[in-house]
Amino acid sequence: MREIFKGIGASPGLAIASAFVLKPEEEYVPADNQVMDREAEAERFRVAVSRAQEDLERIRKSTEEKLGAEKAEIFEGHLLILEDPDLIDAVIEKVQENGQNAEFALYETAQTFIEMLQQMDDELLRERAVDIKDVSGRVMRHLRGVESSDLSAMPDECVLIAEDLTPSDTAQLDLGKVRGFVTEIGSRTSHSAIMARSLDVPAIVGAGAGLRGVATGTPVVMDAVEGILLVEPTDEELALYAERKAAYDQRKAELALWVGRPSASSDGHRVELAANIGKLEDVQKALDNGAEGIGLFRTEFLYMGRNELPTEEEQFNSYKYVLEKMNGKPVVIRTLDIGGDKELPYLDLPREANPFLGQRALRLCLDRPDLFRTQLRALLRASRYGNLKIMFPMIAVLSELREAKRILDEEKQKLMAEGVEVSNSIEVGMMIEVPAAAVSADLFAKEVDFFSIGTNDLIQYTMAADRMNETVSYLYQPTNPAILRLIRMVIQAGRREGKWVGMCGEMAGDHTAIPILLGLGLHEFSMSAGSILPARELIGRLSYDEWTRLSEQVMELPDQESIQQFVTQHTQGGDTNA
Amino acid sequence: MREIFKGIGASPGLAIASAFVLKPEEEYVPADNQVMDREAEAERFRVAVSRAQEDLERIRKSTEEKLGAEKAEIFEGHLLILEDPDLIDAVIEKVQENGQNAEFALYETAQTFIEMLQQMDDELLRERAVDIKDVSGRVMRHLRGVESSDLSAMPDECVLIAEDLTPSDTAQLDLGKVRGFVTEIGSRTSHSAIMARSLDVPAIVGAGAGLRGVATGTPVVMDAVEGILLVEPTDEELALYAERKAAYDQRKAELALWVGRPSASSDGHRVELAANIGKLEDVQKALDNGAEGIGLFRTEFLYMGRNELPTEEEQFNSYKYVLEKMNGKPVVIRTLDIGGDKELPYLDLPREANPFLGQRALRLCLDRPDLFRTQLRALLRASRYGNLKIMFPMIAVLSELREAKRILDEEKQKLMAEGVEVSNSIEVGMMIEVPAAAVSADLFAKEVDFFSIGTNDLIQYTMAADRMNETVSYLYQPTNPAILRLIRMVIQAGRREGKWVGMCGEMAGDHTAIPILLGLGLHEFSMSAGSILPARELIGRLSYDEWTRLSEQVMELPDQESIQQFVTQHTQGGDTNA
Repeated sequence: MREIFKGIGASPGLAIASAFVLKPEEEYVPADNQVMDREAEAERFRVAVSRAQEDLERIRKSTEEKLGAEKAEIFEGHLLILEDPDLIDAVIEKVQENGQNAEFALYETAQTFIEMLQQMDDELLRERAVDIKDVSGRVMRHLRGVESSDLSAMPDECVLIAEDLTPSDTAQLDLGKVRGFVTEIGSRTSHSAIMARSLDVPAIVGAGAGLRGVATGTPVVMDAVEGILLVEPTDEELALYAERKAAYDQRKAELALWVGRPSASSDGHRVELAANIGKLEDVQKALDNGAEGIGLFRTEFLYMGRNELPTEEEQFNSYKYVLEKMNGKPVVIRTLDIGGDKELPYLDLPREANPFLGQRALRLCLDRPDLFRTQLRALLRASRYGNLKIMFPMIAVLSELREAKRILDEEKQKLMAEGVEVSNSIEVGMMIEVPAAAVSADLFAKEVDFFSIGTNDLIQYTMAADRMNETVSYLYQPTNPAILRLIRMVIQAGRREGKWVGMCGEMAGDHTAIPILLGLGLHEFSMSAGSILPARELIGRLSYDEWTRLSEQVMELPDQESIQQFVTQHTQGGDTNA
Repeated sequence: MREIFKGIGASPGLAIASAFVLKPEEEYVPADNQVMDREAEAERFRVAVSRAQEDLERIRKSTEEKLGAEKAEIFEGHLLILEDPDLIDAVIEKVQENGQNAEFALYETAQTFIEMLQQMDDELLRERAVDIKDVSGRVMRHLRGVESSDLSAMPDECVLIAEDLTPSDTAQLDLGKVRGFVTEIGSRTSHSAIMARSLDVPAIVGAGAGLRGVATGTPVVMDAVEGILLVEPTDEELALYAERKAAYDQRKAELALWVGRPSASSDGHRVELAANIGKLEDVQKALDNGAEGIGLFRTEFLYMGRNELPTEEEQFNSYKYVLEKMNGKPVVIRTLDIGGDKELPYLDLPREANPFLGQRALRLCLDRPDLFRTQLRALLRASRYGNLKIMFPMIAVLSELREAKRILDEEKQKLMAEGVEVSNSIEVGMMIEVPAAAVSADLFAKEVDFFSIGTNDLIQYTMAADRMNETVSYLYQPTNPAILRLIRMVIQAGRREGKWVGMCGEMAGDHTAIPILLGLGLHEFSMSAGSILPARELIGRLSYDEWTRLSEQVMELPDQESIQQFVTQHTQGGDTNA
């Protein structure tokens, strides 16, 4: 039956193939029987556990080979579950002492754990329930002698359709055959979505329960850019999507050529193209997309979705991980930017009438030095593992910068007195996102090592328009003359003092803005990983000399419309964001 | 008994005198009796009404002589109540048809009205209840043959202490004797507070019910600057306050000399000192304080404290009143600035996460052209009664200014086509309060007749700090280098295009800012009326030539602290706001 499903595009790309539908395993609830030979039953359970261990060891190994050590870690966790006496010994005890059959003893014990964990506030513990379900299901299949969902029947080219994919499912996929995933449930951050992105396979998640009506073998078209699955497409649709897929794949291949190339204009002017990241798994994606550094590491993920502040040790480990992974490339870590639209319920901060104009980011950190000092210590300790640059957000006046630097220096002295090794070459810089800081950039430039222009907030404050408020969205104008003038002030102020100037707002990846920013002399462009290669390609086609001149002409234009028109004309009218 | 009362200083000044306590009239509830001669009783009521009319006519006349026609208007209202058939005829009917005694008939009828009006949402109607109570009380006293509260026993010099003062009370006061008012209840906007300010008598309101324990004749000291009443002061206190009063009175006399003088620096550079007003009664105060114009007429009062939008006619009358009263002096009327911290419940606007960054002021007007056009029509119609300048608030981008001007022009054409006379010399300008507008002032200057810098908002947005939020109040820095630089940009942009530049934020009256603003070439300083004379005196002592030079030196300083210190040094260290 011809149908269209709409979900969330979780990993971009297109696929045209036949559906392979993974039926959800029916839930098996064993009967509570008494066994005659309790010891034999316990042994039967031990054998099932050890077979499951063999499975997992094999899966772990193949995952490590196919996807790397990090992705294989989940199966080490699964193996540990099989060694957990609270689970395994408890089952054996039930068999030996109550004479219950192994299936029922396993079911009941695992269920108790799963239900308990599912009620936890902590998301990590809730995810642990999924793991226990996955592992106990594997042991159960060995007890019962049934096969796991049969992925071996998969045809050579298919789009895999499932309710959801467990880590075990994805590890057993034959990647040579799967052209894409579509799942009924899930979000951009669910396991299957993350897996799809790291496998570079198109994926649509959350397409709804209707999916289970699709039969294996049905021709499908999936467009994970738009989040659309067409079941039994018409010939016209097939032709259209074949064309789109070809264009998409060609563009991707073209961009892939830019991964290892330097970021330079056609006349050889070098800039740095870096990535903005907000969680640890983004680092790999940044490297895959040819990032020459991390221009903005948002540290809020460490503080959010939990019930208490992260410890110094937790933070240290995260910072160290990213620094090591970037292997000497620059990593700009921004200190906590909470407040505004990001709340931390456990800090119990007072409600504000205008949170974007309130006690956010560094303002809060200076008011809560306990919290700030913990983060700074973690950063300082991590500094020796890479090329760390520390960046303070939301600075408006010099006294704030001075106070933040004073506290940083105090913690550095303390650590060194404790005998902790701290890098001697940490650069200390600030975001330029408050208009006051942009207007006084010359004063700030004398006291920092670098600037990074945070255009999302700078635009919002300069226009006095909440960037989340739809009714004033017409005022969110990155290439408005006022914004460009402030950016020019900042770049000139930095250059005059010999300090580098970057940009870490969305504007840094905007193809209308890039020629102007290049011409104004911006040193570093930091953007989401997926924007890096298109930006590098664009810069490679621009002449720095020409844009130094053209960007000054741009500064004379009266409004965003004429500026956009000017840039389009002078980039031969052909450029839009890829 | 020695006591200290703390209230709200509602009209500044000090007084040292004996207390005269106006006891609140005990509420008189007449018995419901039957009269023998119904016609004679009705006649007795008519006589009481006509005596009350004679009283009111006399009070009206003496008020007009002492306080002017406007203050006397309230008694014309009282006289109208005595002609209101709903009240007067209703009483006579009750006497004639039911045989009730006149006191009871009056009491019952008036009470019905008062209770009904007190339940109204509209503040004006609730105030009308006070008037009916005042008038019916007057008739009642004539019926009963009792004297009204005896103000004739007032000694030569006294501080009048009362629960509250009715318009009749204040009208009957011998102003030669009263040195001040202190009331138990009331706010800065209650009748007694307004009266005190227009009589230029010190007043403290809301000092609490404890006041009624003070005995007439007790010596008191009142400091209405601080809102303090000392009962039975010590000798030390008497000496201290005598000194303070002498200093206050001397300063006031000195300032009074500046009322008629021009606003000019010591070397003859002329500027304009204007007043910010927010309601009609402020105009007189502006004139009394030597305002050379109205630099900001906030029109929100027309829209607030009511249940529906004001009509074009209502608005027209208000604008005409102010223009006529200012008699050819410039009057800058700002179009509606609602939103932000000012809500209009009847517009039913969506809640915003950051109202200060939301759809406020002109943004709302452009989205609600019905509302905007009504105000513009009222302004255009009023234009021929004086020197009107129309000012648009919260403009961030050129397209907003152009759209507002287009709508204004459309309404002008329509009115002229309807044969309505519209002035041909209305200047059209804009507030500079959004950082984007300050940074692009050169672009805006080509398309306006004037700028007025709204520093309250400009500072809040430039610093990204809500001016109502205590936790970030340290960022509200009018003389921060960033703010001064933006102001300089605006003044220079205006001058270059031959447009005048004013300032209507609180900063315009700040004695640290004034020398810098003068030196930067600001044309017009608009402030609260009470700040005008001290500002004129300060400017009279400053050399424009010197401050043109000094203000450039100020622009080189790194922070507010050093700037404030610099200004203090160069104004001989002696200046603070009066």
